[in-house]
Amino acid sequence: MSKILVFGHQNPDTDAIGAAIAFAHLQNELGKDTEAVALGTPSEETQYALDYFNVVAPRVVEAAGAGADVMLVDHNEFQQSISDIADTNILSVVDHHRIANFETANPLYYRAEPVGCTSTIVLKMYKEAGVSIPKEVAGMMVSAIISDTLLFKSPTCTPEDIQAAKELAELSEIDLDSYGLDMLKAGTKLSDKSAEVLLDLDAKSFPMNDKNVRIAQINTVDLDEVMSRQTELETAMEIACKTEGYDLFILVVTNILDSDSELLVFGEPKEKVEEAFGTKLVNNRALLKGVVSRKKQVVPQLTEAFA
Amino acid sequence: MSKILVFGHQNPDTDAIGAAIAFAHLQNELGKDTEAVALGTPSEETQYALDYFNVVAPRVVEAAGAGADVMLVDHNEFQQSISDIADTNILSVVDHHRIANFETANPLYYRAEPVGCTSTIVLKMYKEAGVSIPKEVAGMMVSAIISDTLLFKSPTCTPEDIQAAKELAELSEIDLDSYGLDMLKAGTKLSDKSAEVLLDLDAKSFPMNDKNVRIAQINTVDLDEVMSRQTELETAMEIACKTEGYDLFILVVTNILDSDSELLVFGEPKEKVEEAFGTKLVNNRALLKGVVSRKKQVVPQLTEAFA
Repeated sequence: MSKILVFGHQNPDTDAIGAAIAFAHLQNELGKDTEAVALGTPSEETQYALDYFNVVAPRVVEAAGAGADVMLVDHNEFQQSISDIADTNILSVVDHHRIANFETANPLYYRAEPVGCTSTIVLKMYKEAGVSIPKEVAGMMVSAIISDTLLFKSPTCTPEDIQAAKELAELSEIDLDSYGLDMLKAGTKLSDKSAEVLLDLDAKSFPMNDKNVRIAQINTVDLDEVMSRQTELETAMEIACKTEGYDLFILVVTNILDSDSELLVFGEPKEKVEEAFGTKLVNNRALLKGVVSRKKQVVPQLTEAFA
Repeated sequence: MSKILVFGHQNPDTDAIGAAIAFAHLQNELGKDTEAVALGTPSEETQYALDYFNVVAPRVVEAAGAGADVMLVDHNEFQQSISDIADTNILSVVDHHRIANFETANPLYYRAEPVGCTSTIVLKMYKEAGVSIPKEVAGMMVSAIISDTLLFKSPTCTPEDIQAAKELAELSEIDLDSYGLDMLKAGTKLSDKSAEVLLDLDAKSFPMNDKNVRIAQINTVDLDEVMSRQTELETAMEIACKTEGYDLFILVVTNILDSDSELLVFGEPKEKVEEAFGTKLVNNRALLKGVVSRKKQVVPQLTEAFA
């Protein structure tokens, strides 16, 4: 019997990897035989957390195999999941996103809550099961909460996330503010990366009406530095649209210090972007004050505009 | 601000109504302003439980209204839900079925577990929240578990359902076996009902591949009595297929004493039914020994055959 694979979404962020590690550990403590894996290599931010807590990065997998038992964390939409997700047997999902393009043949465990981070829900599940959390697992979980909530600045952040982060910070023996800022900054070393790599750091696809919309997000402490590479980024977006079949590519560049984002948009229909955010694109760009959350401040608005 | 509507599926069974009553009460205790409603009138089985515990049947609603806040229990598939489900704001789902044809624009609470009855999950949520359960609410919940598990005889029944039923039987001051059998028998008075009514007592639609499959289930203590009305039932199935656009109509007649079911099938492709159950239809009928659960012993097998 092969192990049950536990994984987060493609282009894994710190929650996709941290929640997979934490949920796999919980399931093993409850008697299952699972392995946390990842659908891509860790970002520099995630690698910072893995190194800090001396955790080995999960093995990268491309496919689970037909009929394989799997457990999903931090996502549910099939196009964000493992390549052969439709052929697997999904036992369990823990997530904090909307539900869409998700389907099973059988009843399953599904635990979703509208909180800022999957790891916040996983902490609750540890408590309900009465299972204690090792220091390094708690460290990956608190890193996930810091990452998803941008150190509590995102509108997706709930009081439960803050409380969970405090508890996990104690278990993992870190100072939230100093560790958190160091970890977030580790993910903003962008200048040595190609435009292709930047667009793929944290990107997800969303079917909206009959359009295939790609939304990538980059965190930075210097918006101008990223936008100085506009031409290079637009060329890479054009190529990605052609080769991957995206109709519309939206890059969300988020300043984690100011909590603002600038959009760079390629493809059509651009007017849906303008409609969604009540703004005009100038030179394919728009500054969105106070916008830091793709999930709460970008995807629903676009979905509405496309509806 | 209008109340948040809490409801189970169309053609409500005892769990659809019992879990709605129980979950609405829990949410109200937790500070929400909800109302348990139903997408149809109670069956005789459910009415037996409502009368026994002196509970008023939930108001029947046809639509929630665009943008209305709703909470679903005991279902998720949109075609089984309220007519305007796609235009509502789904806050929460508690369910024990597969997930399919379900989609939201926003993150939500979703709690699914592969147990025999939604009310078993709702009991767990009461405990997690530390909220006590009034006698009549416990009575509707235990009635739901008895109904969904056919007094623990269904293969969908798990140890958790049995344990939950025992706890709820104590809270509601009933003897499980005698109350349970009386309640189930109350739902098997079929002779005074028209074929149209029988086909609609507990019927659900399932999109399978490009076919619209209707699967109705009737509980009885006398298979022959039901099957003596085959011609009348087939005529009613033919009319339902024409007027409602079903391709295939499967009636599952379940003997709750012997735990067997006989199928009566109208429409096409009939060979998928034969393939699903490894049987031959004779006179459009087939006896399936040991089959009592649509969810576990009918829908997955058909889904597989259609895949």
